[in-house]
Amino acid sequence: MTTHFFEHPLNEKTRIYLRVESLLRQLDNSSHFSDGSQHLVFYRSLFDLLEIFEQIQLKSELAKDIEKQRLTYRNWLNIEGVDQDMLRKILDDVDVAHSHLMSAERFGQSLKEDRFLSAIRQRFNLPGGACCFDLPALHHWLHLPNDQKQADVAVWLKSLSPLTGALKLWLRLTRETGLFREQLAKAGFYQSDAEEANILRLEIPSHFGVYPMISGHKSRFAIKFIEFSSGQAYPSDVNFKLAVCC
Amino acid sequence: MTTHFFEHPLNEKTRIYLRVESLLRQLDNSSHFSDGSQHLVFYRSLFDLLEIFEQIQLKSELAKDIEKQRLTYRNWLNIEGVDQDMLRKILDDVDVAHSHLMSAERFGQSLKEDRFLSAIRQRFNLPGGACCFDLPALHHWLHLPNDQKQADVAVWLKSLSPLTGALKLWLRLTRETGLFREQLAKAGFYQSDAEEANILRLEIPSHFGVYPMISGHKSRFAIKFIEFSSGQAYPSDVNFKLAVCC
Repeated sequence: MTTHFFEHPLNEKTRIYLRVESLLRQLDNSSHFSDGSQHLVFYRSLFDLLEIFEQIQLKSELAKDIEKQRLTYRNWLNIEGVDQDMLRKILDDVDVAHSHLMSAERFGQSLKEDRFLSAIRQRFNLPGGACCFDLPALHHWLHLPNDQKQADVAVWLKSLSPLTGALKLWLRLTRETGLFREQLAKAGFYQSDAEEANILRLEIPSHFGVYPMISGHKSRFAIKFIEFSSGQAYPSDVNFKLAVCC
Repeated sequence: MTTHFFEHPLNEKTRIYLRVESLLRQLDNSSHFSDGSQHLVFYRSLFDLLEIFEQIQLKSELAKDIEKQRLTYRNWLNIEGVDQDMLRKILDDVDVAHSHLMSAERFGQSLKEDRFLSAIRQRFNLPGGACCFDLPALHHWLHLPNDQKQADVAVWLKSLSPLTGALKLWLRLTRETGLFREQLAKAGFYQSDAEEANILRLEIPSHFGVYPMISGHKSRFAIKFIEFSSGQAYPSDVNFKLAVCC
């Protein structure tokens, strides 16, 4: 059975984390410039990340959250029934991610100081502004030999690796806290409690032809299924799977 | 010898035309969704086009310009030494493009009325806003069978075909008015007159490692070559080719 997979953040911070994860993935996927438009995705993702870094103190937020996870996992040390080898492995990963994070520059600092990136960033968001006459320096760069471009890309991505490592770890550990369970949305509607949860994960059989609209915050959430073809609330029951991740 | 090719518009209208041409090309190149990020380029290009349509009366501007070209070419009818077969072929193309343009809807009208496109357009420009929780309808759409997506894309692109046809023709005829000639930029600087010209086209040997910064308008223009590696004005002579297109 084909299913559609959805994730939904239950607080603003997790919303940012998931957006940043998505941008880092786009950056990575488009970094080989294997077709004529991947550079558009690459630079857009990079500049979107810089915008987010300017809006919130991502590094300290993430450090706090990684620290919280460390404390949680430490509480399980020497507790019977807990796989101690796996636990130590997790705690090692957390230590590495945390120390890389703490020794990292302010996120995006070196990217913001890069002369080339700063020059093209201003005009990149004009509608249709990636033309050669709007951005001659970018146009020149795109025609450099591939190894030269990849060397630049490697430097830029390397500056983001402490963020990538810590964010991936936090999201992996968070996602692992939730187990998928069968649920029924009566007449296309489902609600439940979710004390201190961060992410909802849904698997929806595609034959229903619906997507979820989710509202709510930490303590309580509601899922309304929308029929894609009509854009209206789906009137019948929907069987789906849900994982609530803390 | 490898050369870099640059184009520069000499007035605001041509600037818009070249941006729209670039967006239409991106739209076309990314419309097969053959990798995981092409939809980002596709929708961004589509929404950039809508933004441009809202800012200027592109259809009437283009109709006026096509009409101007028609008058110019008509003046050459029955003039000795002018290839009359080729001229008639051009005039036929102009007639077709002009009549498609005149019978077309206001550019982007049906795209703006499309429920699905309107719903995703608002959130698409958020930094990192193409996540499934920001745009669940888009996420659903992306998982539809490919022929269903291609059917939607075909409808959207078809609504733009009068624009595409007329713009391509106008730009082709404009570009054909210019012939590339060898030029020398003494100490990296070149200036000249360009009465009523619309586009400058440059071919720059890549071994100079420079890109052009061009200023000026209809009657006069100046080209300053910038060294990519330093970001500074290039201090030596640059041999390049230039076509001035009216």
